[in-house]
Formats: sequence, C-alpha cells, structure tokens
Amino acid sequence: MPVRKAPVASIIEQGGHCVLAPLKLGIAGLGHVGCGLIELIERQARLRLPGEVQVTGVSARSRSRNRPVEIGNYEWFDDAGELAASENIDAFIELMGGSDGPAKIAVEAALEAGKPVVTANKALIAEHGQALADLAERKGVDLLFEAAVAGGVPVVRALRDSLCGVEVSRVSGILNGTCNFLTTEMLASGRSYDEVLAQAQSLGYAEADPTLDVSGMDAAHKVAILSAMAFSADLDFSKVELEGVDGVTLLDLRLADRLGYRIKLIAEGVAANGGVVCRVAPMALEFGHPLAQVNGSLNTVRIEGEPLGAVTLTGPGAGPGPTASAVMGDIAKLFNPGVRSAFGGAKHHLSRKFVGARKSEQAAFFLHVRLSDRSGALAGVSEALAEANVSIDKLLQDSADAENVSPVAIVTHPCARSGIDDAVARLSQLDAVVDATRVIRIEAN
Amino acid sequence: MPVRKAPVASIIEQGGHCVLAPLKLGIAGLGHVGCGLIELIERQARLRLPGEVQVTGVSARSRSRNRPVEIGNYEWFDDAGELAASENIDAFIELMGGSDGPAKIAVEAALEAGKPVVTANKALIAEHGQALADLAERKGVDLLFEAAVAGGVPVVRALRDSLCGVEVSRVSGILNGTCNFLTTEMLASGRSYDEVLAQAQSLGYAEADPTLDVSGMDAAHKVAILSAMAFSADLDFSKVELEGVDGVTLLDLRLADRLGYRIKLIAEGVAANGGVVCRVAPMALEFGHPLAQVNGSLNTVRIEGEPLGAVTLTGPGAGPGPTASAVMGDIAKLFNPGVRSAFGGAKHHLSRKFVGARKSEQAAFFLHVRLSDRSGALAGVSEALAEANVSIDKLLQDSADAENVSPVAIVTHPCARSGIDDAVARLSQLDAVVDATRVIRIEAN
Repeated sequence: MPVRKAPVASIIEQGGHCVLAPLKLGIAGLGHVGCGLIELIERQARLRLPGEVQVTGVSARSRSRNRPVEIGNYEWFDDAGELAASENIDAFIELMGGSDGPAKIAVEAALEAGKPVVTANKALIAEHGQALADLAERKGVDLLFEAAVAGGVPVVRALRDSLCGVEVSRVSGILNGTCNFLTTEMLASGRSYDEVLAQAQSLGYAEADPTLDVSGMDAAHKVAILSAMAFSADLDFSKVELEGVDGVTLLDLRLADRLGYRIKLIAEGVAANGGVVCRVAPMALEFGHPLAQVNGSLNTVRIEGEPLGAVTLTGPGAGPGPTASAVMGDIAKLFNPGVRSAFGGAKHHLSRKFVGARKSEQAAFFLHVRLSDRSGALAGVSEALAEANVSIDKLLQDSADAENVSPVAIVTHPCARSGIDDAVARLSQLDAVVDATRVIRIEAN
Repeated sequence: MPVRKAPVASIIEQGGHCVLAPLKLGIAGLGHVGCGLIELIERQARLRLPGEVQVTGVSARSRSRNRPVEIGNYEWFDDAGELAASENIDAFIELMGGSDGPAKIAVEAALEAGKPVVTANKALIAEHGQALADLAERKGVDLLFEAAVAGGVPVVRALRDSLCGVEVSRVSGILNGTCNFLTTEMLASGRSYDEVLAQAQSLGYAEADPTLDVSGMDAAHKVAILSAMAFSADLDFSKVELEGVDGVTLLDLRLADRLGYRIKLIAEGVAANGGVVCRVAPMALEFGHPLAQVNGSLNTVRIEGEPLGAVTLTGPGAGPGPTASAVMGDIAKLFNPGVRSAFGGAKHHLSRKFVGARKSEQAAFFLHVRLSDRSGALAGVSEALAEANVSIDKLLQDSADAENVSPVAIVTHPCARSGIDDAVARLSQLDAVVDATRVIRIEAN
C-alpha cells in the first residue's frame, strides 16, 4: 500500500502565525462550468474553504472566445497536458469533458507528475476511472470527482466516506434530468416524445444532440461510478446494461398510469448474482415508491443498506452553479483536513453570530382565533387586525361547536412580527375572543 | 493556527507490506446505540472502512446489565473519564448522552489527553460544542459528531465539507421524527394530540417522558449545530428561539389544511439581521413546499444557497442502526484519508465484480401489447403468456384506435426475465399482435 503524500496545501509561517499557503490551481476547460468555477473562486471570501485558492494557469480550446470572466491574469496553456504537469500548479482541475482524447491525456499527465486531480467528467471516470484510480494510488495523490455524479448533490463523498459503515444492498436513482423531464412532461401535458424533446431543447434542458442523455448513457456513467463505490467493486463499464427513454411512448406512460405505475428512467446498482448488477432502463414504479414522485429535471439518489435503512439525496443534477460548487467541495478536500475547527469555521471566514429574530422581520402568519358565536364578533376581529395594520389574505369561519365557540382561521399578508403581536394583544381584549389566539408563522417556499 | 497531528491510525510494516495499524477504540455508553456499534464493529469485514477497528475498552453505568453483545473481552472502566484518557485507546467514542455531567467530563478528558472524539450527543455539542471545538483545535485532534444530527442522514459532513463552496442562505428541516409523526398522524387519523402521543409511545417513536422531543429542544440542538457549520458562526445555543408542538391542536391542523397549509415542526437557521437567526417552531407550509409532504418519523434537511440552489437529504433520524452507521462513518475519518483508492476500495474489502443480470432473476413486468381488434385476439395473448409460465396480475384492454389497433397493458406476477423473453417471442408469432411488445421492469419498493 502506497503511503499518501502530505496534503498539497502546506502550512507556512507568516508574520509569526501559521497559515495555509494558497492552493494553486490549473483549470482546463473554460465552458460554462469552468467559468462558473472561476466566478466562484473570485468570491471565495464569502465561502467556507479551509484556505485560499488561486488560479495560476488555464487552458481551453480557444483563448479569445468571449467569456463572462476575465482570464488575462492567468498563465495561458494551449495544451492542457502541459498545464497539468506545470510546476506552477498544486492541483489540476479537469473540466474539458470527453472520455478519451485531451481530457484523458491531461489527467494522466497530472497524476504522473504527482498532482492531485479534480474532475467533473463522468464519461472519463466511468470508462477509465479504474486505471486512473490505480495510477493516483501509485502516485499517492487524490483523484476526486464529486461533480461527475448528480451535479450539486454531494453523493460521492456521502457514499464513499460518510456511509462506509453501511453494507449497501442497492444504490438507485434518477440520474438524468433530461429523461425525467421528458417522461414527467409527456404524461402531464399529453404530448408526444418528439414534441416534449423539442420543448426541452428550447428550454436548455436537452442538448441539440440529446443522444447521450436519452440513450441512458449519461445515467449509466453515473450509476457505474456510484456502484463501484457502494460495493468496493472494480469499475467495469462494459458490464452496465442500458436502455434509454427514446422508445417510450405517451401511450406506454398512460397505460402504466392507469394501472398504478409511473414509468421513469431508473439507474441502479444492486448486490446480486455474486457480484454487482448495474443497469439503466425505463422502469415502472408504484405510485408509493420513493422515486415515483420525483418530477421534472432534478436528480435523486437513494442508498439502501444495513444497518442504515435508506437515505435519499435530491438536488440539481446539472448546471454551471451546482457543478462548480461540487468542484469547490473537492478542491477544499485537498487542504489539510484538520486545520478548520470541528464546525468547519476558520479565521478568514466572514464572521457571523447567532442573533435573535427581529420583530420587524416580515412573514405571513396563520392565526386561529376562537370566537363566541355572537353578532358582530367577526367584525371586531377584522377591526383589531386593521388597527394593527395586519391585512387579511384568507379567512375561514366554521360553525360553532357545542360550547358555542366558532373557530376562525386567518392567513395574513406578510407583515412584521410586531404587528402580529399587536393584533393578538388587541384580540385578547375583545369579549368575543375566548382562549389564546394561536399564531403560526408561514414558511416561505 | 495549530498544526494537526498525524492521523491516529498509523501505517506499519507487516510482512514486507505497509498496512494500517488497527484503530483502538474506547466506547463509553452501552445502550442501544453503543451495543449497535459493537455489533457493527463485529461484522466490519462486510463494511468499507479504510482499515481495521478494535474495541479495547468500554464503560457504562452498569457492568452486569443484560446486553445483546458480549463485552467480557474488553477492558472495563467504571469511570468513563479514565477510559477517555487511557493509553490503550486511539480514539474515544462517547455514546452516554446528556449535555453535562459524565459525558462532558469524559469528552474533555479525551481531548485533553490528545485523543480524537466521536460523539452522537447533540445536547453536548449544541450546548458546549464551541468550547469543545476550541479545545480540540488547540490539541490538534478531531471532534466528530455526524450522528448528533439527523441520525443516519450524512448531513454534517455534507454541509461542513462537501458544500463548503456554497454560500448558504438557509438550512431548514424536519429534525424531530416524533413531532413529525405526531402532526402527520393527528391530521391523518383525526385523533387528538394526547391520543397520538400515547400511540407514539407504544410504538417506541416517543419516550416515556417526551418533553425533550415535543418541546422542540431536540430539534433546536440539531439546527444549532447545522447553523454553526452553515454560516461559520460561533455556536451560541442561548440565542435559539424555540416553541414545540405540545400546544398544537387537531383543529389547528384541520383549519390550516382547509386553507392549503400543512403545520409541521420546522427547524431553521437563516442568514438575517446581520447574523444567524436560528429557530424551531410549528410552521405552516403550502402543500407545494418541499418539506410539506415529508410524513411520518423521517428526518429531512434542506440546504439552500448560491450557486447551488437547494439539496434535500432524507432518512432515518434515530434508532440504533442508523446512529451506529453514522458513528462508523466518523470513525473511518480518523484513518489516513489517502490510503484507499479513489473509489474507496481497499484490499481487505469483500471483493465484488460488475456482472450482468441473470435471466433467472425474478421481477414483475409491465407489458404493452398492440393487438388487432379481432375476435379471439386477447385469448391468443393469454395463451402465449400461459405457455411461457408467465401469470397475469392485472390486465387492461382499451378501445381500438383509428387503425383498429387495441392497446393491451399487462402487469405480470414476478417471474424470470427468461420467461418474459419467451412470452414476448411467442407474442411476436401471433397474427393479431402488431408492433413489438414493450417490456418494462417493475422496480420493487
């Protein structure tokens, strides 16, 4: 077993204090995700990283392309492999994509040069991950790929590390947002596969060439990676069985619905046949199945095993923001893990304190007023609220009970807590109001 | 900034190879969770830990109490503090409970002695966590508490580490399963708070003294810990505002329901008022709110921020199994993080390979057969299935379309894939069957 090298971000003396030296990054690939990452690095003062990160070198297909971020201050490399092996970087961030070609060559070059690699490239990890992991292990450096599975959902580290005390029996999920949008929207709108695919393309949920998504290949890449971790199995992508949603018709969905099932593209890895069976296919789920009601373009992963039971993680499976935040979580792992406090705080973080809620904070409220059933009682309630400047959104008065008390439920428009307190104090003065008024805050979506 | 000590599980030479020395644990507290942890350690060969763990010392209130695990082989300590400082342990596992008294004394003793601590004690961390974290940081050792929040849901490490690249705006959730069971079941069954509480007690969902749960205190402990991590804030439990479900009536729930809201005990920490506002209270959620449909005794945590959007984690928030698996995930963190491969596998893990699904694997299937609308057509379909030994659970034939084709949907009883393949081959021979038959696997719950 190779011994791991020291964490790449070393601790240095500065003005009599120990601080972490900045972590120098080389980023290859400056599309939406790469630019999203640079934007995030630019506002790292608002984040919770263990130390400072710096972009020192970048590489992309075109240097001159119009981008939302300024890259003039970073050393430019025409060749990603040269950047990967550059002495001027501590870690290599691969956001180029593609299972072969320049991405693979650059990642290998980085690992060979003893540089840790962070990648969002699911095709590369699914198809060549085992060999790359072996190379990383020989070199004693990290190969991290949180962003390769389910975008912003932190499932890679959860499954690999947090849940390593669970004997996993199944890992399953909805791992392709495009496919889930297609089947959800076809059934909801009664439109055909082709019509909804065109809509998804116009909304940016599907690529101009949607093959990688609708064939199930993208979900297969992700579930192969999850299965390798869940079962400590060598990743062998050639064994993954896959079928896409491209053959599913509106009539299939409707007939299944009438018999009590939702058809969705499900990816799963299960312990079976003395090994790991890994497959992606449209599957029919009873309405009560935990994945049956996941609609739209979200990703969901469910991990089952003993003695845990099951946990489910849901969130945005794609997009520059979620993907960049997952890459940042991996970059943070390259720092010495013990230099932050138990709660993760560090001196350079924005300092915040626990404070009480202000009475001026705005929210809508639900009130339950108990009213003697007498003439003018409700008018008194309305007046008390008006005097406190609390305006009513909805009101329901029900019949009086045996004690001649009517329950009145009120939903207010957003107002200050102090206004509600004032209104409740006024209500308590009314003869018609019996019992204390129940006040429940309405939580905004 | 103190420099972190080396990981506690060191790498040793053994027979010419480098292996990890076993990690020696002292466990204080041998109730359901402590015994669950020992059971899990006994079958660690089936888990995915980076190396071997050994229990070397134990402590509990009573040595002779009847327990599901044998503790005779472990050194016994009457005093947990003595165990915590023992030279014979590498790490101290605190499962005693209680915010003050023996648990606090023992955890302090362990940290003072330079031993890392893993604890499931939410009261201790919420009320004294800041001082303990400072002590751990001074001593350069880990203080880990994944099991203190939401049981088996791996939210602590997700929030602290994986999502440290997210600027969190709100962390919220359903963090007390007892309270969520109460409000869910009252509304569903139309029974009173007292009746449902008695039911929860008889089911083991609520303690004989339910105060800690129904007052909101338990959820407050958890959300204070989450908020400290989410906002890099000093944990100040005195600032947490709390209100329980003990005052909520069936009529409150019903009136809110009629106006379009679910009332649930919600815990949340938000960036507001120049600091962090942390509160627990019954709140009203619109039916479409992401937490409104979480029913029963599960825990759910939702983390919102930029550039992520939101992720939601759901799972069992209590119980010996989920809690023990969370403790194990923390114990694994005490090993040198780099000694496993990128996928987390290690030589001592059970070896599994990716394999294909067997044709003998049993599942139920959904079939969509396209049938010419002629006399005897359906009889031919039934016969073909019977000949392949596939039996029918549900069948729906709809009216013929303009081309005189009737769609027939069939749900089979569980059978082998080979049986379905046989049935479909027989169907394709029938003159009445037009188009290929769609076959979709039904995923078991």
